[in-house]
Amino acid sequence: MSKPIQTINRYKADLREMMFLLFEQFEVQNLLGKEPFEPWGEEEIRTTLNECYRWVKEVPGPLNVTGDIEGCKIENGRVVTPKGFKEAWKKLFEAGWKSIGVKPEHGGGGAPQSLRVLMEELQSGANTAFNMYPGLAFGAAEVIEAFGTHAQHEKYLPPMFDGRWGGTMCLTEPHAGSDVGSSSTTAHKEGTDGGYKIKGTKIYISGGDHDLSFEDNIIHLVLARVQGAPAGTKGLTLFIVPRVREDGTSNDVQVTSLEHKMGINGSATCVINFGDNDSCIGYPVGGEEQLNRGMPQMFKMMNMARIAVGIQGVALASSAYLNALDYAKERKQGSSITHWKDATAPRVAIIEHADVRRMLLDMKARVEGIRALAVKLSDHQDRATALAGKDDKLAAYHQGQVDLLVPLVKAYGSDQAFRVCETAIQVYGGAGYTRDYPVEQYARDAKIFSIYEGTNHIQSMDLVGRKLGQAGGANVQAFAGDIAKFVAAHSEHPTLGPSVKKLGEAQNAVTGTAMQLLTWFSTGNVGIVPLVSTRFLEMMSELCVGWLLLQAAVIAEEKKKGVAEGHPDVAFYTGKLHSAVYYASNVLPSVKEKASILAAEDRSALEIPAEAFATA
Amino acid sequence: MSKPIQTINRYKADLREMMFLLFEQFEVQNLLGKEPFEPWGEEEIRTTLNECYRWVKEVPGPLNVTGDIEGCKIENGRVVTPKGFKEAWKKLFEAGWKSIGVKPEHGGGGAPQSLRVLMEELQSGANTAFNMYPGLAFGAAEVIEAFGTHAQHEKYLPPMFDGRWGGTMCLTEPHAGSDVGSSSTTAHKEGTDGGYKIKGTKIYISGGDHDLSFEDNIIHLVLARVQGAPAGTKGLTLFIVPRVREDGTSNDVQVTSLEHKMGINGSATCVINFGDNDSCIGYPVGGEEQLNRGMPQMFKMMNMARIAVGIQGVALASSAYLNALDYAKERKQGSSITHWKDATAPRVAIIEHADVRRMLLDMKARVEGIRALAVKLSDHQDRATALAGKDDKLAAYHQGQVDLLVPLVKAYGSDQAFRVCETAIQVYGGAGYTRDYPVEQYARDAKIFSIYEGTNHIQSMDLVGRKLGQAGGANVQAFAGDIAKFVAAHSEHPTLGPSVKKLGEAQNAVTGTAMQLLTWFSTGNVGIVPLVSTRFLEMMSELCVGWLLLQAAVIAEEKKKGVAEGHPDVAFYTGKLHSAVYYASNVLPSVKEKASILAAEDRSALEIPAEAFATA
Repeated sequence: MSKPIQTINRYKADLREMMFLLFEQFEVQNLLGKEPFEPWGEEEIRTTLNECYRWVKEVPGPLNVTGDIEGCKIENGRVVTPKGFKEAWKKLFEAGWKSIGVKPEHGGGGAPQSLRVLMEELQSGANTAFNMYPGLAFGAAEVIEAFGTHAQHEKYLPPMFDGRWGGTMCLTEPHAGSDVGSSSTTAHKEGTDGGYKIKGTKIYISGGDHDLSFEDNIIHLVLARVQGAPAGTKGLTLFIVPRVREDGTSNDVQVTSLEHKMGINGSATCVINFGDNDSCIGYPVGGEEQLNRGMPQMFKMMNMARIAVGIQGVALASSAYLNALDYAKERKQGSSITHWKDATAPRVAIIEHADVRRMLLDMKARVEGIRALAVKLSDHQDRATALAGKDDKLAAYHQGQVDLLVPLVKAYGSDQAFRVCETAIQVYGGAGYTRDYPVEQYARDAKIFSIYEGTNHIQSMDLVGRKLGQAGGANVQAFAGDIAKFVAAHSEHPTLGPSVKKLGEAQNAVTGTAMQLLTWFSTGNVGIVPLVSTRFLEMMSELCVGWLLLQAAVIAEEKKKGVAEGHPDVAFYTGKLHSAVYYASNVLPSVKEKASILAAEDRSALEIPAEAFATA
Repeated sequence: MSKPIQTINRYKADLREMMFLLFEQFEVQNLLGKEPFEPWGEEEIRTTLNECYRWVKEVPGPLNVTGDIEGCKIENGRVVTPKGFKEAWKKLFEAGWKSIGVKPEHGGGGAPQSLRVLMEELQSGANTAFNMYPGLAFGAAEVIEAFGTHAQHEKYLPPMFDGRWGGTMCLTEPHAGSDVGSSSTTAHKEGTDGGYKIKGTKIYISGGDHDLSFEDNIIHLVLARVQGAPAGTKGLTLFIVPRVREDGTSNDVQVTSLEHKMGINGSATCVINFGDNDSCIGYPVGGEEQLNRGMPQMFKMMNMARIAVGIQGVALASSAYLNALDYAKERKQGSSITHWKDATAPRVAIIEHADVRRMLLDMKARVEGIRALAVKLSDHQDRATALAGKDDKLAAYHQGQVDLLVPLVKAYGSDQAFRVCETAIQVYGGAGYTRDYPVEQYARDAKIFSIYEGTNHIQSMDLVGRKLGQAGGANVQAFAGDIAKFVAAHSEHPTLGPSVKKLGEAQNAVTGTAMQLLTWFSTGNVGIVPLVSTRFLEMMSELCVGWLLLQAAVIAEEKKKGVAEGHPDVAFYTGKLHSAVYYASNVLPSVKEKASILAAEDRSALEIPAEAFATA
C-alpha cells in the first residue's frame, strides 16, 4: 500500500502583495474610471482578484496533482486530457474569467494588463498545465485579432473567445527550434478561395489536440513557407489551419504522438502532422497581403507569450514560497541555536532557524522582485495604451520600457522561479522531495519555463542584440535615467540609504558592461557577445529588481507610519523593508562581480577545442 | 499513442579523467603493491574500472529508466522492486563487484578507497536507485564490522557481504529528522539472550524492504532509546533488528507505506513500524557495553554515507554533462554568430554556439572539480590507512583532511550536481525536458542529494561548528598551508599564473571569513553563524575545487609537452587547462564577493518578524 497522494488544492497566493503593487507602487488607480479602462475602478479590481483567487482554489486547483499523475493520452487518434479538465474549462468560460481581458469591441471586459497579469498568475499558479489550454487559445485568437481580416475576425474570434474552439501556436519543427527560420513546412496556393495546402510536421505543440472545447474544433496557427518565398525567417507566413473545415469535415491534421515530460503533464505536448494526405488547408492570417509576414506577427504573439511565461514562473515560485513558509511555521524540529547543546530544550518551529529564515527571505525577495518586474511591464503597457494618440512621446517611452523588459520578465522570471522552487524543497527537507507536498511538482513544472517561448539565452540575445539599441538606445537610457533619479532621490534615506547606494553601484556596473557590449559590437568582437549575454541579462534584471524592491521599501517605510499598531499592514510593510534590504545586501553585490568577470573577457569557453571537452 | 520511452543504457562515464586523478594527480601508484593494498597494482585498477564500466552499462544501466517509470510497490505487505532489479542484484554479487572493497579478513579484495569511490561513481551513475540497495546493505554491514562483537561479525557479516541479506539504516522518525536526538523509538531489555524489545516508527528508510536478497532477510540498524537513557543524542543506542529471527519466524517489523517521490523511484523509501505487536526484538551493536553509543557509531557510518552522496552527485552530473556534450555535437541548429544575418548560412552543431560552449565548460569544470574533491578525500583515507602505526603524525594529518573534506564532498558535490543537471537540460532545450533523454531524470534523482544523510545546511554546521576547530584548528591550518604552498609555487606560472593569483585571493577571502567566524563564536555572536555557514561551506569548497583544478592544470601543462601530436591526450590535457582557467575566471571571484557580503553582517533574515514573511 502506498500513501494516498494529496489531491486537495495546495495553491497559495499573496493578494496583499498584489494590491500593494497595483495601488501603492504602480498606482494603477490613476488610469481607472476613464478611457480606455472606463468600466474599471479600484473596487472592481480588488473584487475581481479576490473572486478569481477563490475560484482557482475551487476549480482548477484541486486538479493540479491529479492532472500531473494522470497526464494526457491518445485514444483513437485524439488527445484525452486528465479527468476534470473538461468540466474546469466549462466553468472557466461560464464564470467569464477569460473574457475579462478581451477588448470591449469583441465583447470582453477590457481590463488593464496589470490586472490581467495578476489574474494570469492566479490561474496559472493553481494549475499550470490546465491553464495552458485556454492561454494558448487566447494567444492564437489575439494574433488573429491583431492581424486577421475582418472576415477572419468574424469567423474565428467569437468561438475562440467563448470557449467553443481551442487554439495553438505551431512553430517548432524537429530541426527548427531556436532556429525557427529553418522551418520546412510548406504552403502551396490551392484553388481560388484563398486556401493553401499545408504540409509539414510540428513538434512540442502545447494543446495540439484536446477534448476541452465546447465544439470540437481547434484553430492551429502554423508557420509555413509559401513556395518561392525567401529562405530564413523572412519567408515565413502564418496560416490559420482549423482542425475542422467549414463544411464540418476533418482537415488533414494528425496528432501522431505525445511527449513524456518532466512536468506539466496535464498539458498535451503534441507532434502534429499537417497534410499527410495532401489535403490540409490553411489560410494566411490577414490574407494575401500578409504573406511572408509570419515572423513579425509571431513576435507580437511571442511578446505576450513571453510575459505569460514569466508569470507562470512568478505563480509557481510564489506558491512554493508560501507553502514552504506555512510548513516552516508548523514543522517543529531542533531547538534554538542559543540552546543547541541542551537536549531537553524545547523544540521550535523551523522558521526559528537562521538558515531556514535565510532561505525564506531569499525566496520572498525573489518572488516579490519578479512579480514587481512583471507588473511594472504591464503598467507600462497600460500607460502606453492610455496615452496612445494623446501623448505619443510619453506613450513611446512606455512602449519602449515594455519592449526592454520583456526578455527580463521571461528569462529572469523563469530562472528565479526554478531557483525558488528548489529552495522551497530544501526548506521542507525530505518531505519536499515527496508528493505529500506541492513543491516537487512545482519544480518539475517550472523547469520548462527557461526553455519554451525562446530559451533564456535567446532572451538575452534579444536584449543585447535588439533591445539595447532599440530607438537609438533611447529606451535603455530612459530606463537608466529612471533608476538614476531614484538613487539620487533616496541615497541619503535614513534607513534605506546604504541599500540605495548599493543599487547605485550595481547601476554603474551594468552601465559599464553595456558600454563594453557596445565596444565589442563596434570593434567586430561580436563573437564574445553571446558568451556574456546570459549573464548581462541577469545583471540588468538584478538591477531592475533591486530598484523595484527598494522603491517598494521607500513606499512601505512611509506608509507604515500611518498604520495603527496591531494592524496586519505593520507586518506587511516591515516585510517589504526586509525584502529590499536582503536583496540589496545579498544579491546586488553580485552585479558588480559579474561586471568584473565579464570585463576580464575570459575566452576559455570559446577557445577550448571541441574534442577537448571529453576524450572518454 | 505516446512515444516509446527510451530504456537503453544512457549512462556515460569519463574513464580517462578517472585515470588522470588516480595516477597523475594523486599518484595512488605510490601506495600500491604493498601493505595494506598489496594485491593492487596500477594495471589491476585500470582493468577493474574498465570492466566495471562495461558491466554497469550492461546490467544496471538499462534498468535505470524502467525502474524510474515502474517504481516500487507493496504487495501482501512486502515491497516489490522494479522488473530486473532482482536479476541485477544476483549478477552484481556473482560478478563480485561489491566484495572488491571488503577487507581481506572478511573475504574481500581490500581495494583502496580511491578505487572504491570511482567504482561507486560508475555503479551509482548507471542506476542511482538500484545501487542504493547494495549500498545500504554494505553501509549497515560496515557499522557491524566496526562496532559489532565477534559473534555479531560471524552471524551477520558473511550473509550481508555476499548478497544473501540486505541491510538498512533506520534513523529518521516523523518528528526527528535533522534533529535525530528527538527520536522516540524505545528499547526495553527482554529476557536473558541480550535482546531488547523495540517499539517505534521510522520513516524515509531507503530499501526498508525489498525482494532482492538471495535469502529473504534484511538487517535493520535502528536507533532507539533504552528506558532510562539520557535525552537527546547521548541516550541513543543502535540496534540490530533482523527482519527474520534466528528461528526463521518473522520479527515484528512492518512496512506500512512507500513514499511517492520526485525521483529515485526504483528505490523503495519506506515507513516501517517496529513492534506494533510488542514482539520486535533487537540487539545492541557491540553488545551491552555499547549502550548509548549509537551516535558515534552512526557518525562513522554517516561519514561513509555522506561521501557516497557526494559521489552520487558526481556520477549523475558527469553523465549529464557527457550526454549533453554528445547531444551538442550532434544537434544542428542555427548558423555561426559570424553569419547570423545570413539565412542561407550552413547550420552548425550547437556546440559551435558560444552560450552552449559556456554551459558545457561550466559543467565540465564543476564535474571535474567535485570528482577531484571526492578522490582527494579518498586518497587521504588511503594514506591514513597506509600510515597507521607507521607514521602516526602523518596519518593524523591525512585523517584530519578526510574529516574536514566530508561536508564539502557531500554538500558542494550534491549542490553542484543538481546545478549541472539543470544546465544539461538547458543545453538540450525542449528535448531535455522530455524523457527521450536522460537528463530530466538525473535532475529529479539528484534533488534528494542535498537533503538526505544530513541536509547541506547540517553539513555546513558540521564544517563551521566541528571541523574548523577540530584538532585545535590543525586540520584547517594544514589545509590552508597546502593551498598557500601551491599558490607560492605557481603564481608566476607562465600560463596559469593569473589564475593561481585568483586562487590566492580566494584563499585570503576564505581565511578572512574563517577568522570572522571565530570572532563571532568567541564574542557570543553565535546567532549569526548558522546564517552564514551555508555560504561559507560554498566558499571553502570553491577554494578547494579551484585549487584542485589548477593543480591538475599545472600537471596537464607539463604532461602535454611529452605527448605526440594527434594523440588523444593532447586534447585531454588541453581540456584540463580550460577547466581550470574557466573556473578561476568565472567562479573563484565569487568567493571574494561572498566574503564581503558575509562581512557586512546583514541580519535582515534574523530580524524580520515571523508574521512579516507574508500577510496573505
